[in-house]
Amino acid sequence: MMDDRISKQIAFALELDKEKNVFRQTHLSGHGRNENDAEHAWHMAVMAYMLKEYANEPVDIAKVMIMCLIHDVVEIDAGDTYAYDAEGLTTQKEREDKAKERIFSLLPEDQKTEFMSLFDEFEANETPEAKYAHAMDNFQPLILNNSNNGGDWKEHNVTAKQVYGRQTKTRAGSEKIYEITDMLIKENISKGNLTLE
Amino acid sequence: MMDDRISKQIAFALELDKEKNVFRQTHLSGHGRNENDAEHAWHMAVMAYMLKEYANEPVDIAKVMIMCLIHDVVEIDAGDTYAYDAEGLTTQKEREDKAKERIFSLLPEDQKTEFMSLFDEFEANETPEAKYAHAMDNFQPLILNNSNNGGDWKEHNVTAKQVYGRQTKTRAGSEKIYEITDMLIKENISKGNLTLE
Repeated sequence: MMDDRISKQIAFALELDKEKNVFRQTHLSGHGRNENDAEHAWHMAVMAYMLKEYANEPVDIAKVMIMCLIHDVVEIDAGDTYAYDAEGLTTQKEREDKAKERIFSLLPEDQKTEFMSLFDEFEANETPEAKYAHAMDNFQPLILNNSNNGGDWKEHNVTAKQVYGRQTKTRAGSEKIYEITDMLIKENISKGNLTLE
Repeated sequence: MMDDRISKQIAFALELDKEKNVFRQTHLSGHGRNENDAEHAWHMAVMAYMLKEYANEPVDIAKVMIMCLIHDVVEIDAGDTYAYDAEGLTTQKEREDKAKERIFSLLPEDQKTEFMSLFDEFEANETPEAKYAHAMDNFQPLILNNSNNGGDWKEHNVTAKQVYGRQTKTRAGSEKIYEITDMLIKENISKGNLTLE
């Protein structure tokens, strides 16, 4: 018989598997299919490690990585809400709070507390780790979308103003990544991939 | 203009995106589609963090996570070699060495050295971090396959003897994870999902 603690941990691990079936609006490079949450989180975590020299403040990189890896876990129940979907955004918090309680409750009590706290820290976006992780959450889809000539923006008629609206978070985590982001947005405007308003 | 260093880092990040199109023999839970390398690495890294109390020796968890996240990067060129594909295994090392050189050379020199060293440390399987990461590399597909009644083993006529052959690596990283692995293998034998030889 498995002890209760590891049974719960394995149940949580199996639940996580479902993130591989939550699809985002972002497309893979080479004009590929839509990306899923597990892939996005993996990509963000590797990028966070590789680009850590650009974090505005020193970060505990293990904490940044685990935050990146689990930051979308609530979407197993709540689904992905597109960053520019104004209607979906109004109900997002309620849907995600319910999901957070259900999913992290699969873990042993101490780990439920720990994982929820990491998740909440990311959401609150106040610590150096959370701010840097948010920069990755914005930058990872940006480089994919840029590699596809802004296809995701064109599909949803997203404006440069909307894209810039999200980038204050990037800047709070990394001035350098913001500088690159700004350059890429300007390039996409000049190519006609993004309209101004 | 982007400086040379960050251009290289972004080129590497975009190259990584291709791991999302390298499919493995393992299927997602719920008798889902085949899993890809990015998803597998993400799942392993979260599990490594969650189960770190069971590592045989104390580990630097940031190092374990980045090892998990990049351990399959060579498969972008070399493809996935199934653990029980005897023919593929004979050419695996040569194919993967070439890929390793090409892919990590996209990075700035210092990071090429760092990432190759992490990759090689995982492969050599001698440090506590590498051994524990290998336990995750085995355990992650095992829990998916177990949840699917051993479908992946049945598809490839894999025997219990073959499965046990891989588990010495699991045991070197985590006695506790080996104990659970052994229990799951025995359950699958008794259900007829695995033949003995």
